[in-house]
Order: sequence, then C-alpha cells, then structure tokens
Amino acid sequence: MSEYTVLKPTTIVIFGATGDLAKRKLFPAFYNLYIDGRMPKGFNILALGRAENTDENFRNYIRENLENFSRKKVTSEDWAGFQAHITYFQHQLDEENSYKSLYQKLEDLDKVYGTRGNRLFYLSIAPNFVSVISGHMKNASIASDPKKDRIIIEKPFGHDKASAIELNNLLSQTFEEEQIYRIDHYLGKETVQNILAFRFGNSIFEPLWNHRHIESVQITVAEEVGVETRASFYEQTGALRDMIQNHLLQILCMVSMEAPASLESGEIRNRKVDVLKSIRRITPEKVNHYAVRGQYGKGTINGVEAKGYREEDGVASDSNTETFAAIKFYLDNERWQNVPFYVRTGKKMKEKHSYITIQFRPLPHSTFTDGPSQLSANRLVINIQPSMDIRLQFMSKKPGLSLDLEPVEMVFNDFACQENSPEAYETLLLEALSGDLTLFMRSDQVEEAWDVMKTIQETWEKTKDSSFPDYEAGSWGPEDSNALVARQGHKWV
Amino acid sequence: MSEYTVLKPTTIVIFGATGDLAKRKLFPAFYNLYIDGRMPKGFNILALGRAENTDENFRNYIRENLENFSRKKVTSEDWAGFQAHITYFQHQLDEENSYKSLYQKLEDLDKVYGTRGNRLFYLSIAPNFVSVISGHMKNASIASDPKKDRIIIEKPFGHDKASAIELNNLLSQTFEEEQIYRIDHYLGKETVQNILAFRFGNSIFEPLWNHRHIESVQITVAEEVGVETRASFYEQTGALRDMIQNHLLQILCMVSMEAPASLESGEIRNRKVDVLKSIRRITPEKVNHYAVRGQYGKGTINGVEAKGYREEDGVASDSNTETFAAIKFYLDNERWQNVPFYVRTGKKMKEKHSYITIQFRPLPHSTFTDGPSQLSANRLVINIQPSMDIRLQFMSKKPGLSLDLEPVEMVFNDFACQENSPEAYETLLLEALSGDLTLFMRSDQVEEAWDVMKTIQETWEKTKDSSFPDYEAGSWGPEDSNALVARQGHKWV
Repeated sequence: MSEYTVLKPTTIVIFGATGDLAKRKLFPAFYNLYIDGRMPKGFNILALGRAENTDENFRNYIRENLENFSRKKVTSEDWAGFQAHITYFQHQLDEENSYKSLYQKLEDLDKVYGTRGNRLFYLSIAPNFVSVISGHMKNASIASDPKKDRIIIEKPFGHDKASAIELNNLLSQTFEEEQIYRIDHYLGKETVQNILAFRFGNSIFEPLWNHRHIESVQITVAEEVGVETRASFYEQTGALRDMIQNHLLQILCMVSMEAPASLESGEIRNRKVDVLKSIRRITPEKVNHYAVRGQYGKGTINGVEAKGYREEDGVASDSNTETFAAIKFYLDNERWQNVPFYVRTGKKMKEKHSYITIQFRPLPHSTFTDGPSQLSANRLVINIQPSMDIRLQFMSKKPGLSLDLEPVEMVFNDFACQENSPEAYETLLLEALSGDLTLFMRSDQVEEAWDVMKTIQETWEKTKDSSFPDYEAGSWGPEDSNALVARQGHKWV
Repeated sequence: MSEYTVLKPTTIVIFGATGDLAKRKLFPAFYNLYIDGRMPKGFNILALGRAENTDENFRNYIRENLENFSRKKVTSEDWAGFQAHITYFQHQLDEENSYKSLYQKLEDLDKVYGTRGNRLFYLSIAPNFVSVISGHMKNASIASDPKKDRIIIEKPFGHDKASAIELNNLLSQTFEEEQIYRIDHYLGKETVQNILAFRFGNSIFEPLWNHRHIESVQITVAEEVGVETRASFYEQTGALRDMIQNHLLQILCMVSMEAPASLESGEIRNRKVDVLKSIRRITPEKVNHYAVRGQYGKGTINGVEAKGYREEDGVASDSNTETFAAIKFYLDNERWQNVPFYVRTGKKMKEKHSYITIQFRPLPHSTFTDGPSQLSANRLVINIQPSMDIRLQFMSKKPGLSLDLEPVEMVFNDFACQENSPEAYETLLLEALSGDLTLFMRSDQVEEAWDVMKTIQETWEKTKDSSFPDYEAGSWGPEDSNALVARQGHKWV
C-alpha cells in the first residue's frame, strides 16, 4: 500500500487472543503500528477468550508480554494511549449464543464510535476451529459486508489439495474471496518484499533474469530450532507441508514470476499462480529423482548436544515425519526452461539462515583462462534472515602486478538498520487494515501449491524412509540432498 | 602478464635519469618491484646524465628521493641490495661519440653478467630529443636486436596526426614496432586495468553492455591542480592534446571495445583501434555542437584563492589555450549506435576525481510509478582515482511499511587496500620488462586517436575563444559543458 492510504476506523476482533501468537506477534505488531501512527484513527481490539476476565487484567497481561516481544520500547505514555483501545470479551468458539453476544458487542462498539467502520477478524486459532467459527459467523450475520469485513486466517490452509479445496469451499459459503486474508508471514519480510522491488524497479536485472543467463536458483530456509513444543502438530505435518508448500513456494514465485502490469493485488497473484501452474508435475516413480527427505538424529549445534527428532517429547520412536526436505523444481515455461530451482528446508540445521542464490551461467568464452586464476561464475545472493542483504559476486582484477582475477563481492546491506525495519506481522496487519490483498494467498494459489506437492507428499506418506534418522542435528541435512544437486554438476552454496 | 613469467636478465638504460620523472616515478617503481621480488634475476639500471658524476653520488641522490616518492618504506637492507644495481654513466644526447661509449659500456656490462640479456631503453626526455636519440642509436647499433631490445617513450606522441605519423616513421627506421612501448600511465592504473576484468571476466555485464540497455557513458578526469611548472609546455598543448587524445580516449576504448578473443596484445590493441575508427568524425561547422572548451579564471579551491590561468607564470595574458575540454562522441557501430559518450577533463576543477559513469536506460514500464517515489535509472560508477571503487546504483524497497522504492548502492571497494596496489609505473615497467605490449600504444592507435581529434583541434586553433576565461577555478568547468549534455536531456553525474 502507499504511504498515504487513509485507514478507516476498524474494530479488530481476535479469536484466540489469549494464545501464543497473539501475545508474541499480534499485540506487539498492533502496538508498534500504533507508536508509528499507522493505526486507523478509530480502532478497537476486541480480544476474545474462553475464560472470564476483566479489561484491566487482560491489558496488564498484554503489557507484560510487550516488554518481551515489542520491537520498540514500551513507554508509559504510549501504553496509556494504546491500552484504551483493548477490550476483552469472553466468548466460546463453539456456542451459537456467544456469536449473538459478539454481534451485539460489535454493534455497541460501533455506536460508541458513531460509525459503522471496518471489521477485521483474526482467526488465531487451531485449524480445526475454522469450520465451526465461520459457520457461526454466517448464522449470526457477523462479517456479512464484503466491502467492510475481512478475516485473516493462519496457515496451514489444509493438509493436502483435497482438504484445501474443502476449506476454501467452506469459507466461500460465508465470505467472498476478497474478504479472506490467508497469511504467510514470509511475505511480510522486508527482504522478501524487496524481491519485487529489485526485479521490477530496475532495468538491468530483467534482461538477465531468464534461462539464457541463469543456470540455477537455490532457495534455502534453514532453521536451527527443532520442533520445540509443536511435536504433536509437527508429527502430522513435516517439512514439506510446514515450509515448502507455503514459504518456499511463495519465494520461488516471487523470484520467477513474470513482470506484473501493475502492483494491483489480482495482477500479482495471477502472475504467482502462473508460476505454480508451470511447475513440472512428476510421476511417483520420479519422486526420488526430484525430492529428498531427511530426519535429524542426535548431533551438536553450537557446541551443545542436541537430541534426535525421535527423542523429542511427543514424537513417535519410529516416526516417519521428515524434518528436512529438498526438491528440484522445473518451470516449464519460456523464461525458465531447464533451469533447476533447488529448494531446501530443515530443522536443527547448522545455522538459522534463509537465502536465495541466483547462479548465473559461466562465461561462454573466457579471455582470462590462460592465467592461474579460475573464474567463478557470477552469483547473486539475497539474504532474507537473519542477515538481510544483497550480494553480487563477480570477478575482479586481483590488486597487484598481474592481470589475474579473483572473485569479489558488491554488497548492499542498508536493510541492516533493522531497528527501522517493521516485523512481518506489522506489515501484513497494516496491509489487511488497508484492504490490500497482495501479500496474502488467494484460494487458487493455495490449491495450486498443494497440487505441486501432491505426488511427493503421497509417495512419502505411503513409504517409510528406512534411513531415518539420516542427518545429524547441526549439519546441512542428509547426504542425498547434496547428491540431488550434484547430479546436475551443482552444489548448495 | 602472468604471475609466473620468468624475466630475462636486463640492462635498463634511462635517458634523462637526472630528470623529474626518473626521480619521482621510475626509480621508485624499480625499487618497489625489487622489494616485491619482481625484477629480473640479473639487472642493471644504467642512469644516463649530461654531467659528470660518480655512482656513489648518484645513488645517494636516488636514495634521498626514494624517501619521498617510494610507495613502500625504504630500509637499509633493501637499499643495500638495490643500489648495487645502479650505475651512473655520463652521456651527451646529441654527440655521436657518446653513443659509441654507451655501446661499449653495454657490452662491458653484458660481459660482467656473462650473458647478452635484454635491454630496455627508457627515453625520459623532452619529445624533441626522440629524433636525435633514435638516429644515434641506429648509427651506433644500439638496440638493434628486435627480440631483445625495447624502448619506452613518454607522451606526447606528436602534437597532431601529421607529426605523430612523422614520429612513427622516424622510429620505424630504427626500431621494429614490437620494440616500441609508448607509455600512457593511465593504462597502468589498477582501476583502469580492472575495466577489462570486469567486462570480460563476468557473464552478467556483457548482455547489458550495449545501446539497448545503456543510455549514455560519461568519463571525467578532473584535476585540482593548475599548470604548475609546466606552463610553457601547456601553452603549446592544452587539455585536448594533454588529456583527451590519450588518457580519456584510452579509457573510452576500454569501456566500449568488443570482447577480445584473447589477452594477446595484438588482439586487444586491434579491438581498441576498432573503437577509434568507429568514432564519428565531424565537420568543422559541427564542432560547437560536439565540443566545449574552457579556461579557468580566478576562483577558490578548498577555501584557498586560486589564480586564473592567464595569471600563471609563463602564460600569455591573452592565452587561447583550453584548460578544460568536454566532448560528445558517438561510436558508429552496432553496439553503441546513438549512445553518447561524454568525456570531460579540466584543470583547477572542484576536486581531483577520475571516474566512469555507465548510465543505464530507465525502465520501459514502471510497475511502481503510482507510489510517491520517483524511480532513478540504474547506474554503474567506476571510480578510478583518488577513490577506487565500483558502485552499482539500483532501486530497493525503502525499509518500512510501504512498498516505496529508493535509490541505493552496492559497493565494491576492496581496491581500497591501496598499499598493496602497485603504482601505474610499476605495472607498466614490469610489463615492458616481460615484453608484453598490451598496455602500451601501437602506432596506429596513436595516429587514429589524433585523427579523432583533428577537426576539433584545427577549429580551436584557428578561432580565438572570446569568452575565456569562462570558468572559475574550483568549479566543474564552463556552463557550456552542462549545456552539451543537457541537449540530450542528460547531466554530468
């Protein structure tokens, strides 16, 4: 959205306001937007929780958590202004009457503010509640105005293509598509958003951005953490569903999409769906050729001994869940013919590091090869987190008396002033408040992304991987991951 | 040359060894090469001077000057080793007998070293002596072996096309072309040498390096100094001859030349001549459209009052000599059709700064123009001196909540470890010692470069510029210089 969009007064309703996401991300995001003067002139945060509670108690609880999770310092003055916008409301997700009361509460709040403003419903709840909530919302005529009411839904959006279609159908009975903001927090990251700016705000990259000049693309999202407290969820999910179907495919879309005619959300989302549609579908026999799964065993991370996945609380001792996945995608379109897109993600990897590598083709003919120096092909690295920078690797004359070359880097790291960089949730909530769907997932994107995963997912479910655990905690994943890229003469960089 | 070329024993003969260039540049260069272990195993520097002198006296004089002019520190140990290689020899440039003695001296030195090594003659003398020296050298059969004897000549190589041809003809009576090393010290600079590495050692720049993606090229060589002690020379020369015909045209060649098939000197020099031949020749009536001259008046540089050119010692009070020149060149070839190459150089400018700007074309269509930010077109800046770096200017997302863009820079400045960077003369002398002509000017390059200048030169000589002095010392040159580029909607950057 543009700097100057004026936001309309909005009531923000958080289902699951006492949960983990609300305290760690949502309230801190709203608070920081408030400090920055980016909240609408009139706004209420209506925090829904199962238990009885007072506004005062709930506000104190939020304040305590802000101390830990707010990007900017919490001052008494700011807090005094902000807390007045928080109202606690006791609400039972599964009781029809509770929605009638909620309806009345919203009407009352509207009257207090003398206007029927926008409403933003944040479903910060487990996925199995989406169905019941949306049903009750429909019956109680909450969020019935497609122009004013919006709902934000957290991933996972289904667990395979069929369930995603089912979920989308269900939602469509209550909401119009333009009311639904399916959140993928990766799309709110500064460095991810910058991919579009970098590609389409400059004239010099587009001529190079195709199979004639790019040899391969790599996308890595490596986590240092394991499953933490999410084991029961993760056992049903795995790396493919938890990361690749959403974050990594979204990044792949932004790296590879055609230029949008405008920044209009429909236009950008169409271009992303085009990419997903162009991804080569594979047959079950080819899964081992295109995809590698892994599961971490014991190991050492930063000098500290780390448990294997099967030793984690809540994980089956013979678990077949993958904590690592690497896939080679091909985009069967004009721009990307035969350019492998390697993506990988894993838990308990050597370090936390998300980045994109654009590997350019080597020189067709090298004037310089008679010298002792070996030429490295050019490479562009976009670091997403924790480092946030863009690095262009090229060959330069080695300082000195000979015309020998060495690989060097041009670096752009002004992102580094990270204090000024908003958190992904700030960006995404502001977009939702302003009614811009660009950074959210449309139903067909979600379904198409599941379709891309389908064969691999089904094959991996059907067959047990007898090599599990096959990588050490603190490593870069199983050996097969290296073999996957080595087959084309490449390596992870 | 490659790191591992083994240099043959060489006697280095310096004509004019008591002069300014020898003490400031040549001996320091040889000394630093010596420290770096880059001199041939056996070498003598035979220093020729008009006056009687002893080896010891001359060596002391060199040592004193090394303290001021050597890049690396002078230590007793290094000096002890180096000084033994210096021999003083009294010699009269214009006396035939003196060359006979020189012949004998060289033969004697060869005997001392038990071998007939290479000889490198450095003509560090005023241009009017070249003729007499080469005549005597021929008569005395000095430098008669084209495979072993080389001569280095300083600019100017003539003062116009006719005199350059005459000089080349004269030299060719004594020497083969491959014996003649016409030195242009700009070609020895690290950052200038790197232009070839940058262009032809990377695959991502070549696709952009043409009229489809580049809108204009600028080359600036701005000096802060005035004519210093060179007024009598400069009055006969001017900026066009002193700088543009050689340094700026050479840089232009390196920026614009086609890819050489190899680094073989003939190959590179052919590609440079191709550029010079392709430069559009203009008619006298068009000179004002393509070229601007200027002369500095009084002004202020770094807060200090500065004299005007006509007030300098040895300059005529109505001098018509240009101390500034800016020219718009077009290269009539496939790659550069209609891309203006703007070059400018001047004395007593605002700051000492030599740099190249590659201005890329703006985006054909901007997705982002509906936002408040204006997009700047991409730009590559190669700083030659005093700063030595490469900067790529591009658009990036402004950190923050809106998708607004701002111009940012990627910087490569590893050259900055300038202590390790050899002086241009070190590079060039080592090239000459190793017999590599790449960085030196071939006769046809020199003549073609004069041909490029011809019309402007003749027109400026014939007509007095009544606006002189037309720029203030400490400025960026006359207003007409801005008008020259503004005519195409450009500006100096």
